[in-house]
Amino acid sequence: MSKKKLEVCLSPSLLHLYDFKESAVVIIDIFRATTTMVSAMYHGANSIIPVAEVEECIRVGEATPNSITAGERDGWIAPGLQYGNSPSLYAGDFVKDKNLVLTTTNGTRLLFMVKDASKILVGAFPNLSAIVAELKKLDMPVLLACASWKDRVNMEDSLFAGAVAHHLSEDFDIHCDSALITMGMYREAEKDIYEYLRHSNHFKRLSDRKYQEDIRYATTVNQNPIVCYYEDGKIIAND
Amino acid sequence: MSKKKLEVCLSPSLLHLYDFKESAVVIIDIFRATTTMVSAMYHGANSIIPVAEVEECIRVGEATPNSITAGERDGWIAPGLQYGNSPSLYAGDFVKDKNLVLTTTNGTRLLFMVKDASKILVGAFPNLSAIVAELKKLDMPVLLACASWKDRVNMEDSLFAGAVAHHLSEDFDIHCDSALITMGMYREAEKDIYEYLRHSNHFKRLSDRKYQEDIRYATTVNQNPIVCYYEDGKIIAND
Repeated sequence: MSKKKLEVCLSPSLLHLYDFKESAVVIIDIFRATTTMVSAMYHGANSIIPVAEVEECIRVGEATPNSITAGERDGWIAPGLQYGNSPSLYAGDFVKDKNLVLTTTNGTRLLFMVKDASKILVGAFPNLSAIVAELKKLDMPVLLACASWKDRVNMEDSLFAGAVAHHLSEDFDIHCDSALITMGMYREAEKDIYEYLRHSNHFKRLSDRKYQEDIRYATTVNQNPIVCYYEDGKIIAND
Repeated sequence: MSKKKLEVCLSPSLLHLYDFKESAVVIIDIFRATTTMVSAMYHGANSIIPVAEVEECIRVGEATPNSITAGERDGWIAPGLQYGNSPSLYAGDFVKDKNLVLTTTNGTRLLFMVKDASKILVGAFPNLSAIVAELKKLDMPVLLACASWKDRVNMEDSLFAGAVAHHLSEDFDIHCDSALITMGMYREAEKDIYEYLRHSNHFKRLSDRKYQEDIRYATTVNQNPIVCYYEDGKIIAND
């Protein structure tokens, strides 16, 4: 059995260079959307419905039984919504069995951009090993897609891509320089991801706002061992 | 005096995210255009006139006194032109005092994309220290612009950006994650750039075609200590 290829796309602005229709695409938005999604699903959410805008979030929330709404704009809970999107917030009971209608900017946009992929998975450090194991099982080409920061390549998403690629390097063919670059990052960061990312821009932005707990959460590996897929407009756990 | 910012753009597809009108932009196409340009200028070319197409190369060559034409397509000297674009080729006498009309695909395209920059410099490992010294002198914001490979991020151009950023890290403000990522690459590669790049895709493509000498040339640091600018449609040495 020949190995499938694994590629890394460092920014949504580069997505047009990749053909991912037959691939499993992992969406990555470490300091926000995907860590929050993984946390909420691990803590018992029934599903997550990602939406682009606050208005839509309110509308879908009203139309969805047993739902809660969440989303931030400029770092604060958006008016009209119930919760923010701190990953650490969702390590609680309030999300259990709920349908979480979530609006994020970066992460949701990327999700919609890869909607034609064969499979879409949600990746974050808290479910790193679960994602790696699932991708081994799937046996299809893989694209690790970084949400980045307003299309600028960022360290945290790139590093997570590198972590996944590193752990799959014997199972997949990796001839993608972006993947090789991020694997090098992971080799340097592996021992202390939190410390490594302290130099990133997003870390500094979040630190300014005292989001220390979120950063700790987002850099803690394998605390939420769950696989989540985006299917038919919502994120669901893989049972 | 406040420090100026230094940023790295990993692919022409990301250039729209950067405002470089007031900046010094260094164009980087390590395994082809920029190493060739630096080599030719160091070995005495009077100027280099970059053009996009083979036809234009022939036409401009005919209209330019004391010129030679050069360019490749698919790895071979393009029909109608006189020379290829191997960097190692230009370590010879034939280019001395000539106006070299050069067509390359990747490198020329990038050059035209950054034409509105305040200054445009040509960067390659053979003129690394000269570029670093010049950027210190200029005292303006810097954008290190990678030509990449058909817009896909590549290791060799990223690594050179990291080398420049590394050597300027005390003189510039670096808050760009792409710069930080490439500086990490350089820390890993510094001791043996050739060995580090052996894993890159372009290296493999070139090796297949037995371009060993070119790769050695392109990864040899500071053998061509010269600063070249692109001004008024041509590349000239900075005297």
